Amino acid sequence: MVYTKTLTVKIIDINADKPIALLHTKTANDLLAFPQNRVGIKWKEKSLHYIVDVTDTMVDENTLGIYKDITGVTKLQTGDKVEVSLLPFPQSVQYIIKKIKNKVLDENEIKEIINDIVDNKLSDIEISAFLAAVTINGINLDETTDICKAMTATGDIIEFNVPQVLDKHSIGGINGRVSMIVTPIITSLGYIMPKTASRSISSAAGTADCMEVLADVSFDVKDIKRMVAEVGGMLAWNGKVDLCPADDKMIKIRHGLGLDPEGLVIASVLSKKKSVSATHLIIDIPVGPTVKVRTKEDGERWANKFLKISKDIGIKTKVVLTNGEVPCGRYFGAALEAKGAFEVLENKYFDNLAEKACEISGCLLELVGRVEQGKGYDLARETIKSGQALTKFKEIIKIQNGHIFSSEEVPIAKFTEEIKAEESGKIVVMDVSCLTKIARTSGAPHDQQAGIILLKEVGEKVKIGESIFTIHSNSQDKLKIAVDQAKATFSETIKIEKIILEEVN
Amino acid sequence: MVYTKTLTVKIIDINADKPIALLHTKTANDLLAFPQNRVGIKWKEKSLHYIVDVTDTMVDENTLGIYKDITGVTKLQTGDKVEVSLLPFPQSVQYIIKKIKNKVLDENEIKEIINDIVDNKLSDIEISAFLAAVTINGINLDETTDICKAMTATGDIIEFNVPQVLDKHSIGGINGRVSMIVTPIITSLGYIMPKTASRSISSAAGTADCMEVLADVSFDVKDIKRMVAEVGGMLAWNGKVDLCPADDKMIKIRHGLGLDPEGLVIASVLSKKKSVSATHLIIDIPVGPTVKVRTKEDGERWANKFLKISKDIGIKTKVVLTNGEVPCGRYFGAALEAKGAFEVLENKYFDNLAEKACEISGCLLELVGRVEQGKGYDLARETIKSGQALTKFKEIIKIQNGHIFSSEEVPIAKFTEEIKAEESGKIVVMDVSCLTKIARTSGAPHDQQAGIILLKEVGEKVKIGESIFTIHSNSQDKLKIAVDQAKATFSETIKIEKIILEEVN
Repeated sequence: MVYTKTLTVKIIDINADKPIALLHTKTANDLLAFPQNRVGIKWKEKSLHYIVDVTDTMVDENTLGIYKDITGVTKLQTGDKVEVSLLPFPQSVQYIIKKIKNKVLDENEIKEIINDIVDNKLSDIEISAFLAAVTINGINLDETTDICKAMTATGDIIEFNVPQVLDKHSIGGINGRVSMIVTPIITSLGYIMPKTASRSISSAAGTADCMEVLADVSFDVKDIKRMVAEVGGMLAWNGKVDLCPADDKMIKIRHGLGLDPEGLVIASVLSKKKSVSATHLIIDIPVGPTVKVRTKEDGERWANKFLKISKDIGIKTKVVLTNGEVPCGRYFGAALEAKGAFEVLENKYFDNLAEKACEISGCLLELVGRVEQGKGYDLARETIKSGQALTKFKEIIKIQNGHIFSSEEVPIAKFTEEIKAEESGKIVVMDVSCLTKIARTSGAPHDQQAGIILLKEVGEKVKIGESIFTIHSNSQDKLKIAVDQAKATFSETIKIEKIILEEVN
Repeated sequence: MVYTKTLTVKIIDINADKPIALLHTKTANDLLAFPQNRVGIKWKEKSLHYIVDVTDTMVDENTLGIYKDITGVTKLQTGDKVEVSLLPFPQSVQYIIKKIKNKVLDENEIKEIINDIVDNKLSDIEISAFLAAVTINGINLDETTDICKAMTATGDIIEFNVPQVLDKHSIGGINGRVSMIVTPIITSLGYIMPKTASRSISSAAGTADCMEVLADVSFDVKDIKRMVAEVGGMLAWNGKVDLCPADDKMIKIRHGLGLDPEGLVIASVLSKKKSVSATHLIIDIPVGPTVKVRTKEDGERWANKFLKISKDIGIKTKVVLTNGEVPCGRYFGAALEAKGAFEVLENKYFDNLAEKACEISGCLLELVGRVEQGKGYDLARETIKSGQALTKFKEIIKIQNGHIFSSEEVPIAKFTEEIKAEESGKIVVMDVSCLTKIARTSGAPHDQQAGIILLKEVGEKVKIGESIFTIHSNSQDKLKIAVDQAKATFSETIKIEKIILEEVN
């Protein structure tokens, strides 16, 4: 038997992003509950878990304060009477400590950690300790597979009841919207490709941000199944469907800390692919000095892990290491990158973005057995040339309630300024990371129309005073700050090598 | 130049225990600020740092919500106009990641982490990752010394301008209030002993809780200096003085995770002692199966580290390993443990609590050169026998505005029930950890008068049905639950060995 108090609920309008029970200090003391402890709340035969915070004035001794967004799930309302008691720390905290002690976790221990993350039984502090422990001590292949399976099992699964579901994923850091070109290519050839994508965290735009410029991206499982049934694919934001809630929570904390432990990134990617029932998958690992994977050797290690876990969970996967050193296409920012994908599909030019999209589409077509080895690229390129991929892209935009159907209709920010070469010579570096930062200063991704257009590419010759790129923004303040930043970091962003080092007469 | 918005402050009455800036989602997006990012707030030439949380309704787009307790420091008020801008992650996050990568941190990197913890520039999530990294990768002796010095430097320091300031510390887990006996013994002999102590976290009572039954314990630096000048010592709560704010914040997170990394515990203890200008110090390390240090070998390793760091920071220290296997004295709970300390000083009996207090006082007297090696114990015991220590204890109580001056005046909870032996034999174990849990269920430490009185001790013979201990509580509900718990866990709490295993006739 546990000491229990009856309290009256008061809903508090704050988005705390986790289930917080706000108790009066005296009530908390009486329950022996300190901040960060858990209380159990019994209500209408349901049993809920909350993390304790205390106040002296916000609620009185007989009241339980509950933060708003959580009640969306639990339906608790101001005035409800609930039974509140102190809970012990969940067992999963012991398993986190086990990982801190560098012990291997078994399948059930991993399941319990993942379940407790989903059920909000673990606090951010505990999840952070788990992530640090996984980063330091690592997880072996079995643990990675177990995490992957547990994350898939605790979220929605979208089933299509077809033998082949194709997908791709890039582990990121590069501009250019390969997925917005690959998805129409693949679906135009009759395959199913239910592409879910994220919004930007640290880049100038995510695929979901870019697609949102053209059409809706927030869809639930039912919508996605309907759209795939009608046109074969779609490009949806992965935040509306609840595919891997444990992963989403861990990603938030990982991003804040800049932690990308290999095992977790791999489990994260593959669990989301398993959740959309993918059977054939291309993983794109950009390799370069400013992206997640720095060297070819690291890339190969990542690739082998991806292949092993894919096999364990039943996805036929191929991994490609790609050039992460140069910008992919010439745009940074949501609307601009959407425009770039459109221009490729409209056959206006064939740049390195188009090339990458055809390579990845080609690999998928070879993997699924549509063509023999070495013929995929040509088939993919043909769907662009023939206009077949563009037609499919418009179908996808239409089914996503879209309103923009050509590159020329894509709206771009109204204020603009050009950044000019500070010396003459050949461009040898255009730093993706610096360009991304400038685009973000100009307003991306919140201002969907803000960003950068590159006017030159790596390898091109330029003269002093020639424009290298333009910055776009809807805020004159932000544009000015972005221009200042671009000028201050010019030599780091754009490296120009003199062609003639010295003239001797 | 950084993009800045002018917002109006709205004070929100929640104790968030860290500086949170609550922004409307649109305002956060415009500033490019995600939850867990930092914003800088400029106001009256001050520059403040807050961690971002977002809401759609609690504040509007032009308002900055600030949680209440923080404004106690910053003096911000509802209606103030402030300049808000996104800040990069603090440099110290990079040093935390460096420790995650198992690199040694230098003095400046450690200073920056500790300063940023004090200045609330690091979030709980980041501090948790740091603590996990320190637990897993460890810190070397230099890092430990640097942390110790940085923690002392970022808090108040109490200076007494005398050559000798004596102190003691126990790294805990045991009942019995040794400090309430040692402090009057030492100060009755003319030394200065400014004892600061904590409240209970997981035990039935901390020294501050026990002393609070008799007198006030919340004092600031000025009060402490005055009291020490007048009577030589005091027993104050360490939470009112701001000796090591970085340590206090880390301890909160460590307790939630159950992490006690050696280096940090040592730095924590010694930084607090340096902050009260201690020159001579006894560290008590209880060793036993249910306390922090489990084996003698571990105890010796801890001891050597304590000695090395003490030397580095200029404190003459002796470490004693003590028996952590049996209860210390016969009481659990704030009022009861205060009563026990009183009874020893009143010379009513001489139990293992009295013995430990005299041993530790004796070591201090030898360390400070008052008596030669081996004579300290007798001198300490003599101050009890003569009543000199009791007189000093009453002086200390009086100067702390106390109102209870004898063991008989100590109030005890009104409801009580006896727990009886379930078999006959000899008591071989009385488990401190189980007894603590029962005392807490009965209401300790919130109910200061609740707790346990042991009626028998380890080694004593008992008959079935004889009372072993009594539980005290001011709540009949809590008493009932504690009694049920005591009965359910009896064989774990009290181990009784049969003296005659079998009678053969």
